[in-house]
Amino acid sequence: MDTPVLESIRPLLSWLDMAAVAVFAVSGALAAARAKQTIVTFAFFAAITGIGGGTLRDLLIGAPVFWVGRSDYIGVCLAAAGAVWLLRADRWQLPALLWFDAVGMAAYAVIGAAKAETFGVPPLACIVMGVLTASFGGIIRDVLAGEPSILMRREIYVSAAALGATTYVVLVALGVDRTAAGVIGAAAGFGLRALAIGKGVALPGYGDED
Amino acid sequence: MDTPVLESIRPLLSWLDMAAVAVFAVSGALAAARAKQTIVTFAFFAAITGIGGGTLRDLLIGAPVFWVGRSDYIGVCLAAAGAVWLLRADRWQLPALLWFDAVGMAAYAVIGAAKAETFGVPPLACIVMGVLTASFGGIIRDVLAGEPSILMRREIYVSAAALGATTYVVLVALGVDRTAAGVIGAAAGFGLRALAIGKGVALPGYGDED
Amino acid sequence: MDTPVLESIRPLLSWLDMAAVAVFAVSGALAAARAKQTIVTFAFFAAITGIGGGTLRDLLIGAPVFWVGRSDYIGVCLAAAGAVWLLRADRWQLPALLWFDAVGMAAYAVIGAAKAETFGVPPLACIVMGVLTASFGGIIRDVLAGEPSILMRREIYVSAAALGATTYVVLVALGVDRTAAGVIGAAAGFGLRALAIGKGVALPGYGDED
Repeated sequence: MDTPVLESIRPLLSWLDMAAVAVFAVSGALAAARAKQTIVTFAFFAAITGIGGGTLRDLLIGAPVFWVGRSDYIGVCLAAAGAVWLLRADRWQLPALLWFDAVGMAAYAVIGAAKAETFGVPPLACIVMGVLTASFGGIIRDVLAGEPSILMRREIYVSAAALGATTYVVLVALGVDRTAAGVIGAAAGFGLRALAIGKGVALPGYGDED
Repeated sequence: MDTPVLESIRPLLSWLDMAAVAVFAVSGALAAARAKQTIVTFAFFAAITGIGGGTLRDLLIGAPVFWVGRSDYIGVCLAAAGAVWLLRADRWQLPALLWFDAVGMAAYAVIGAAKAETFGVPPLACIVMGVLTASFGGIIRDVLAGEPSILMRREIYVSAAALGATTYVVLVALGVDRTAAGVIGAAAGFGLRALAIGKGVALPGYGDED
Repeated sequence: MDTPVLESIRPLLSWLDMAAVAVFAVSGALAAARAKQTIVTFAFFAAITGIGGGTLRDLLIGAPVFWVGRSDYIGVCLAAAGAVWLLRADRWQLPALLWFDAVGMAAYAVIGAAKAETFGVPPLACIVMGVLTASFGGIIRDVLAGEPSILMRREIYVSAAALGATTYVVLVALGVDRTAAGVIGAAAGFGLRALAIGKGVALPGYGDED
C-alpha cells in the first residue's frame, strides 16, 4: 500500500499492513474450515478476505490494485490458508484472533482513508474508503460462505471502522500531524471494537424500542 | 455524472441524477428497515443502492468513479438513511415511492447509456451500461438483504431499463437530437415500468406455458 | 482479448476465446432455465457467466475491459440466451456441455494468465488472474441463482484452472515457448477436470479423515 504522507512511520505501517492481511486471511480460512471446505476454497476465502477490501478501495479511487504488481500479499494469503489447514487452527481456542482482527480492522480503516487522501479524494469519500478497506473483505467472505454478514450483525464492527477513519480524517482536517492522527484514529477504532468484544456493546436495531 | 453531449439540459439532468440517487438510497434504507438493521447498515444499504449501479458502469467504461471525487452523492445517501430511520418511513403507506423509483430507473437507464456513449463505447455496450446503471444497485441490495432479487422477479424492471436505454441508443443512431432521444427513451422506460406497477404486467417465466 | 505474446496462434486463440464465452454463456442461461426465469434474466445470467471472469481480471490488472469497446462478446451472450430459451436446451441430455465447459475453462485459465503477463503482472498474480478468468463468472452465476457454488463444491474445477494457469506460468518461466506452454497448460487443466467429470475425482474436505 502506498501512503507517502506517512513516510516517517512507513516501516511500521508496512509491517502492520502485511499483518492485517495475514489476520484477515486467517479469518477467511477459518470460515472455510467451519464449512468443511477443500484446500482450494481455503485459499480462495483467505485471499478474498485478506485483500478484498483494499482491492475495492483501489478500484474506486483509480489506484493500481495494491497486490497485483507483487507476489508477497498473495503469498501471505496462501500461507495463511495452508497454516490453518495443517495446524487445524479451527480446533484451538482462539480468543486472541478476535483481538488481532480488531487491530487489523483499526489499522486498515486508517490506512484506507490515508491512501485515498493521497489520491486527492475529499474527506467524506476518504472515510468511506477506510470503512470499505476494513470491512469489505469480511462481507464478501460471509456472503460466499452463507454466514450472517458482519454488515448485518448488530455487533459493532463497521461502526468501529467508521469511527477510526472519521477520527483520522477530522484530525488531519484540523491540522494535526498525520502520524499522530493515524495513531489516534486507529486507537479510537480499536477501542470501540474492544468494547464490543469485551462488553458486548451493540447498536440498537431499527424499531427495537417498540 | 459527466454527460457533455447533453449540455443544453445539464441543470435538469444534474437535478434528476441527484434525485435518482436519493430515491434509490431511500429504497436501500427501507430494505434495511424491513430487516430491523442498525443505522450503520441503513447507511451501507442506502449508499450501495444509490450509487452502486453508476459505480459499476464507471469501472467498466474506465471513467473516474462519479462519486469518489466529491462529497454530495455520499451525503445524499447518508441523509436518506438518516431520514428513513428518524421518520420511520417504513410505516408510511408509500405507493409514491414506487413511482419515484420508476422515474429514477428511467432516468438512470438513459443517463448511463449517454455517459458510456461519451466514452466511445459502441451501441450494444451502451445499452448494457444503461441497464447496469439502473438496476445493479438494487440487485446488490437484494443479495445482501437476502430478499428476492429484482433480477429474479418476473415483474418488469430490468426490461424497462433495457427498453429505455435501447430507445435512446437507437434514436441517437438514427440521428435524433440527444435531448429528444433522452426524453423519449426515459418516457418509454417509465411507461413500461408503469404498466408493471399499475397493471401487474409481467414477463412469462421459462416453461410457463407447459 | 489482447494477447500479443501469443501472436502466432492468434486466430486459434481468438476463436477459442469466443467459443469459451459462448459455452459459459450457455451454462448461465441453463441456470436461468432451471430457475424458470424470464428471457431478461436468461440474458443477464448468460452475460455474467460468459464475460464476468475476464471482466474482473481486466479491472484488477488495469486493462480496458475486453468486451466494452466492441459488440461481439455481448452479442454472443445474448445469442446464447436466446438459443437456450428457444431450443429448450435444458431438456436435452447434454453431457457434451460439461466437456465443452471443461475446454472453455482450460482455455480461459491459460488466456487469463497470458494476458496478465503482457501487463507486467508477476507470476503468482498471473496464476490468480488465470483462475479468476476461468471461474469467477460461474461463481457469480451460482451466487445469484442461489445454487451451490463451484467454489464450494468438492468436485475439482477451480483446482483444474489453477493447475492449467500454474503449468503455463512455470513453463514460461523455464523458458519454454509461449505457444507450447499454453497448449501444455490448457491440456493439464483439461486433463484434471476430465478426471473429475469422468471418474468423480474430488478434493478431500477439511476434517474428512476424522
